Amino acid sequence: MRHLLDTQTLSKDLALRILDVAEDMADTQSREVKKLPTLRGKTVVNLFFEDSTRTRISFEAAAKRLSADVINFAAKGSSVSKGESLKDTAQTLQAMGADAVVIRHSASGAPRTLATSGWISAGVVNAGDGTHEHPTQALLDAFTIRKRRFGADSRGKDLAGVRVVIVGDVLHSRVARSNVWLLTTLGAEVVLVTPPTLIPQNISGWPVRVLYDLDEALAERLDAVMMLRIQLERMHAAFFPSEREYSRRWGLDPARLERLTGDSIVLHPGPMNRGLEISADAADSPRSTVLEQVANGVSVRMAVMYLLLAGERMDDAMGSGQEQIR
Amino acid sequence: MRHLLDTQTLSKDLALRILDVAEDMADTQSREVKKLPTLRGKTVVNLFFEDSTRTRISFEAAAKRLSADVINFAAKGSSVSKGESLKDTAQTLQAMGADAVVIRHSASGAPRTLATSGWISAGVVNAGDGTHEHPTQALLDAFTIRKRRFGADSRGKDLAGVRVVIVGDVLHSRVARSNVWLLTTLGAEVVLVTPPTLIPQNISGWPVRVLYDLDEALAERLDAVMMLRIQLERMHAAFFPSEREYSRRWGLDPARLERLTGDSIVLHPGPMNRGLEISADAADSPRSTVLEQVANGVSVRMAVMYLLLAGERMDDAMGSGQEQIR
Amino acid sequence: MRHLLDTQTLSKDLALRILDVAEDMADTQSREVKKLPTLRGKTVVNLFFEDSTRTRISFEAAAKRLSADVINFAAKGSSVSKGESLKDTAQTLQAMGADAVVIRHSASGAPRTLATSGWISAGVVNAGDGTHEHPTQALLDAFTIRKRRFGADSRGKDLAGVRVVIVGDVLHSRVARSNVWLLTTLGAEVVLVTPPTLIPQNISGWPVRVLYDLDEALAERLDAVMMLRIQLERMHAAFFPSEREYSRRWGLDPARLERLTGDSIVLHPGPMNRGLEISADAADSPRSTVLEQVANGVSVRMAVMYLLLAGERMDDAMGSGQEQIR
Repeated sequence: MRHLLDTQTLSKDLALRILDVAEDMADTQSREVKKLPTLRGKTVVNLFFEDSTRTRISFEAAAKRLSADVINFAAKGSSVSKGESLKDTAQTLQAMGADAVVIRHSASGAPRTLATSGWISAGVVNAGDGTHEHPTQALLDAFTIRKRRFGADSRGKDLAGVRVVIVGDVLHSRVARSNVWLLTTLGAEVVLVTPPTLIPQNISGWPVRVLYDLDEALAERLDAVMMLRIQLERMHAAFFPSEREYSRRWGLDPARLERLTGDSIVLHPGPMNRGLEISADAADSPRSTVLEQVANGVSVRMAVMYLLLAGERMDDAMGSGQEQIR
Repeated sequence: MRHLLDTQTLSKDLALRILDVAEDMADTQSREVKKLPTLRGKTVVNLFFEDSTRTRISFEAAAKRLSADVINFAAKGSSVSKGESLKDTAQTLQAMGADAVVIRHSASGAPRTLATSGWISAGVVNAGDGTHEHPTQALLDAFTIRKRRFGADSRGKDLAGVRVVIVGDVLHSRVARSNVWLLTTLGAEVVLVTPPTLIPQNISGWPVRVLYDLDEALAERLDAVMMLRIQLERMHAAFFPSEREYSRRWGLDPARLERLTGDSIVLHPGPMNRGLEISADAADSPRSTVLEQVANGVSVRMAVMYLLLAGERMDDAMGSGQEQIR
Repeated sequence: MRHLLDTQTLSKDLALRILDVAEDMADTQSREVKKLPTLRGKTVVNLFFEDSTRTRISFEAAAKRLSADVINFAAKGSSVSKGESLKDTAQTLQAMGADAVVIRHSASGAPRTLATSGWISAGVVNAGDGTHEHPTQALLDAFTIRKRRFGADSRGKDLAGVRVVIVGDVLHSRVARSNVWLLTTLGAEVVLVTPPTLIPQNISGWPVRVLYDLDEALAERLDAVMMLRIQLERMHAAFFPSEREYSRRWGLDPARLERLTGDSIVLHPGPMNRGLEISADAADSPRSTVLEQVANGVSVRMAVMYLLLAGERMDDAMGSGQEQIR
């Protein structure tokens, strides 16, 4: 794997390989010494054009657990904010010896530009770009769904027959987009539930069903419901319902939580707006996987950096076979 | 030791144990290679809701000397500042694999809430909470007083017979509170000297004598005088003397410095307002332990993190006996 | 070497020794594992009173490649910005065990004050002070010129017979000053080309020729042309040409680039203002060494920290002989 830019073009084989390596990584995290020597001498740069402490420290923890050196580059206040081009910034980081660049950027497509322009040879990981994608979030979500379903027997399994309902502001959500592509690639069925004003225009091409009524969606069999985070700063835009209406119609309140059956689970990418898109009851219920998602996020990011940087730099058309992690 | 939340409930045995381990740590700091492998693979998160570069880098240096991975989480600008609850933040850090959380918070009691709510299993260290406590500061002060008094023979010694005068804005000082409890637990006698408007209401329950006149306090035998830092941003409050009056009546000026006798020492938690609560003469005098305090701060914080994270996680009712540090 | 404060007082022997050690360091950077254990247990503090993400991460990468612990201390927002003296800050860092302090400061001379005041024993590296000097920048420039000229045979070579043209706002440029001293010490001939309003007053004492006309300078034989970065925030000052006039008269545009002959190269300290002091053609031309400079910057800073902190702390009057890096 040279880069991880999106899930839309991620093959099922490679997606499963990342999830399987993440299983190996998760196993190492319960050891007395959680640290692996695998990426000793490698340098990972967190190049964040948008603040995101959670995502940044998840990548930082993942890289450090693999013994990489981590350099945090918050673009705010740097020469970048004074108009330095992405190209010059990226080439500078590469010249300093960066082996991987984890980039978060407000512009959709910035990671792909970085990776495919020929500017740098370092591996590029998309940590969220505009309203485009956030692939490691989708991978950790898929990992979480698979782990809850298959437990210790997860390796090699896909998500065939799994039905996932994603609820919220799909229009602005890179998390939703990455999940739509990845989950369907893995064989899952995806239902989107969204206020009518918050549907993407091109959604007819997506491999999903769209509903406007959360209760209708919850009436069907489902294995996982994923509540998207509401960006409060958008709440006053004209196309947005009020907080009260949003919560009443699209929030996972205690009554809706009770309607969940079987082993179905509740995901949220965090941080949660308790009482808005998700009630405290739902957030803290045994169905909630919020904290597993966070823990799995470190494992998935370790897997991604391992596949990017350790040993041979495999191409997307990579061989199968489970590689043992030292 | 599971957590270090305050000195008020810290037993004498455990306090002495921390100070003795800190002696061992201090010994390692004069070696050619100052780094110990003790906490390799452990992750320490500095969760700072208030800026404090000095305290943060002291904890950071301490953790790195023990080979822990350190992740700095400045809450400002993060989702925390957008209203994420302390509970969600803490659980997120734990899920990422934090073994210890060093927390500074403007709300008194936040570290205790974190440690006792059952939210997390990571060790919690209070790095200053509101006007409540700053226990590692008091431990480094006690360490400094003991070291000046007993030198290489400090191990196992308490502070019986030592008289310490603490001078300044006791009302707002968590440093004063932590020192009052710890020093008296260790057998010292504590005298507070404070402007009449800056006495805590509940002080009648404290095991201290209170004076308003610094010269009266200095006329008695004393072993250490601790000058509290004046928070200049408070200086314009109604209950506060002017800078000039403060300095004249409660500042350690050259004349007062000269009245100190014997081996008595001058402590200050730093950073100093030279010319306000402490004169340059006093700050730079051989009696001043300001820089020893800083150095001892690293040793004490190494000791605390060692006791929290290395080997068995001992309970407060821990056995005695000096453990050797590898 | 105890400190690196400037290039004006740097002897030729020591300058060559730094460049030669940097060659050894550069060799290590192409290895599979770029990390050397040399400074394990040492603590390097980046004390930055001015923002400079590029310079900070170059020093950070250099120190981490040598296995030092790195602590970043951005003075903004810290007690330093609340008026703590440089002396107290420095002594605090030293007391915490800092072995080297890399300082960037807006006041010319701050690093020298730090190093020579007797306040601290840690090694001090000037990472840019006011309009005074930026010695590691000049060292990496000299390294780059030498490397392009002599390739693998660079070790031990000086710059005798090399002619370097430095173009831009010399008045405010610490990069220009450090290069003037270092390049001439190494035997090069330096020509400054600068708008008449941007010449330093004391320039008559500098070992340089001054021209006002870039085309005149380019008409002569030259080996390297160094384009200084324009500080856009100064562009509206009375003594400054307009952007348009600056670009037309002192910018390295495509026409001027074409007039370069032989192996002559184009340097820029970065970040570049493409289209202002340097055209995109020039920036991306094979003559451009911009990215080599960045890579060489890490090697040079590794060399400086190695000479400051590893083994014996040699004095400026150091012995010769090439030391092998483990």
